[in-house]
Amino acid sequence: MKLYISTFAPNPRRVTMFIAEKGITGIEPVMIDLNTGEHRSAAYLAKNPMGRVPALELDDGRVLSETRAICTYLEGLYPEPNLMGVDFEERAFIEMADRRIELHLLLGVANWVRHTHPGLAALEQPQFPEYGAAQADKMRETARWLDAQLAQQPFIAGERFTVADITAYCGLEFGRGLMKFRPGAEGMPHLQAWRDRIAERPTAGRT
Amino acid sequence: MKLYISTFAPNPRRVTMFIAEKGITGIEPVMIDLNTGEHRSAAYLAKNPMGRVPALELDDGRVLSETRAICTYLEGLYPEPNLMGVDFEERAFIEMADRRIELHLLLGVANWVRHTHPGLAALEQPQFPEYGAAQADKMRETARWLDAQLAQQPFIAGERFTVADITAYCGLEFGRGLMKFRPGAEGMPHLQAWRDRIAERPTAGRT
Repeated sequence: MKLYISTFAPNPRRVTMFIAEKGITGIEPVMIDLNTGEHRSAAYLAKNPMGRVPALELDDGRVLSETRAICTYLEGLYPEPNLMGVDFEERAFIEMADRRIELHLLLGVANWVRHTHPGLAALEQPQFPEYGAAQADKMRETARWLDAQLAQQPFIAGERFTVADITAYCGLEFGRGLMKFRPGAEGMPHLQAWRDRIAERPTAGRT
Repeated sequence: MKLYISTFAPNPRRVTMFIAEKGITGIEPVMIDLNTGEHRSAAYLAKNPMGRVPALELDDGRVLSETRAICTYLEGLYPEPNLMGVDFEERAFIEMADRRIELHLLLGVANWVRHTHPGLAALEQPQFPEYGAAQADKMRETARWLDAQLAQQPFIAGERFTVADITAYCGLEFGRGLMKFRPGAEGMPHLQAWRDRIAERPTAGRT
């Protein structure tokens, strides 16, 4: 299999961290250069018509895109360690946690970055800086809620490490790298402590 | 079980249509009035701290939120007819189709409505009308891609009706009702024909 990814972007990082947590080897990484618009090239659009990374090309030539769908596939192929739930009930509750983070934290960070950072102007046109700033405020609301959650439980979805921790970590790291967002400096000590624990995992990559 | 829903909003409709397609009976609907801010009341936030509908309260008192997570749970409880994939591979490809629609079509419609429609000013603050209009343009790009897909296959994810059809239908109907968006009038005949076929299903509700 081949995995199409790019540097810095949070969604490819989610999949590469998921793969590392599973201990999966043998998937060939293929770098797509977002800055030169390679994700909009005819060759890449033939792989993923949405023009987004990541995408996973299977050995039979089919291409699976959308971060969480790729994780679902890899979880099926490599069930251990389980990261998405062992039965439908746990799968549903982990999916709830993962989606809350994805839609209200990671997407908030991404819209903040994409609409306010000059380095993203080539990727997000038109940029709406005031919209981006408002999204940052809403993301902080979710982060504060998450901070309170993490005062009571060790991981995003509860008692164990799951895909939702990967989503939250990669989202927050994107905000840390490009917007200098530090939960601890904004009165969210539990979220910061959780982030620092996740950063110590050997799968966390660059910090 | 109790299902917290509201009128007009596309996400509660996705779950009620999913339930109807499954033929599930006995789930008690509870209406939440978004216009009076009931979703922001302490009583509702105790059910779903995200302040969103839908939410499914289980018989043991736990509450599951996030549309697609609720569908995952109900699919597990009531496996037939299958709407989300029979094995992990099909589940992954249907999840890909569903997420493409949710993130690039339904969310585009929702942002268009929320940021430009006066009737949504109470729910979306601040509104950014120019951002909303730009989101409508991007949503149309996805709709045109989908139109080309539906020239070659009968349903959103391929050969059979799945949860992705529900997501697309409820997203488009939200745009139809509030923004008068008609794919057929915008040069997308296959998407319109698909929409009209889905609207004939007894589960489609109001049209």
